[in-house]
Amino acid sequence: MELYFATGNPHKLAEANLILKKFGVTLKPAPSPKIEIQSDSLEEIAQYAARAAYSSLRCPLVVEDSGLFIESLNGFPGPYSSYVYKTIGCGGILRLMEGRCNREASFKCVVFYAGGEVMCSFVGIAKGSIAEEPRGSGGFGFDPIFMSEDLNGKTFSETDPSEKSAVSHRGRAFRALGEWLSDSGREHTLK
Amino acid sequence: MELYFATGNPHKLAEANLILKKFGVTLKPAPSPKIEIQSDSLEEIAQYAARAAYSSLRCPLVVEDSGLFIESLNGFPGPYSSYVYKTIGCGGILRLMEGRCNREASFKCVVFYAGGEVMCSFVGIAKGSIAEEPRGSGGFGFDPIFMSEDLNGKTFSETDPSEKSAVSHRGRAFRALGEWLSDSGREHTLK
Repeated sequence: MELYFATGNPHKLAEANLILKKFGVTLKPAPSPKIEIQSDSLEEIAQYAARAAYSSLRCPLVVEDSGLFIESLNGFPGPYSSYVYKTIGCGGILRLMEGRCNREASFKCVVFYAGGEVMCSFVGIAKGSIAEEPRGSGGFGFDPIFMSEDLNGKTFSETDPSEKSAVSHRGRAFRALGEWLSDSGREHTLK
Repeated sequence: MELYFATGNPHKLAEANLILKKFGVTLKPAPSPKIEIQSDSLEEIAQYAARAAYSSLRCPLVVEDSGLFIESLNGFPGPYSSYVYKTIGCGGILRLMEGRCNREASFKCVVFYAGGEVMCSFVGIAKGSIAEEPRGSGGFGFDPIFMSEDLNGKTFSETDPSEKSAVSHRGRAFRALGEWLSDSGREHTLK
């Protein structure tokens, strides 16, 4: 099954396709820009983007929105992680975290499927904490400073893509989508 | 003349009405939510919001978008100033600025007027720098740490509302709107 994926981020497309392969689903870049609204809620952002993209494309598609939520920074950078990464980067986050005891953080991903009558969202969360310094060279964005609870403190950048996908927020959300899509009843609805 | 102002921020409404009073223009809160997209460009954000609000209200309105752009932080917090203020606040910005020689910053405001066939934007910029610590109790948001070039280094929080409006980004943009609205040709078009 092929589906459009409204994203401008090639890393996300590659990660999602790696996960969805075993479900027989391939995502291809949507030929329309992703409209992202400002909101504290990833669900709202993903839903708005999916509905807007569906209105223009009129065929089944998914969008994804994710962010890093740091507890002692009141959830910052949250839904604006991409902009924050682009401007102040990992260095800025580490500076904001200097001297903080509570370094707990989570990555959250919301995948929203829009298929006309069928609209559905899938959430994935990865728990962990902010490292004292960047470690590793894999992944992208804030991966070098996010130590995953499920990887015994290794950062997302210190893992290979399949190890990361097994525990990552994006992995969890896209697997939930894959399972839902490959459910026979759903397949029937969607075809 | 009365116009709708699509904003959820009562401070902005009060500031704008203070400025527009002398032009005989009163803004009233729009009965529809402001849809803000994510973009590095305030113009794009304001334009999208104005067009969306106009589609729903079908009568003349303005929206405003503004942000603090810090040169040595690559423009951060920019269009996301409100979220950044809510999460890491002035304290977070000051921490990011520790030890930086270049403290130059500017506040920028874009006012977008949507009147159906007439769509127009007005830009105001206030130049200054980031203070070493918060000063003053007036204004809102990042005002306590923004030292205005036009106020001999006083922060926006150390001024009274009319002194701030005379030099602020919002003051400049709304005055440009006011002048345009009170131009007799425009008035004729708009009535």
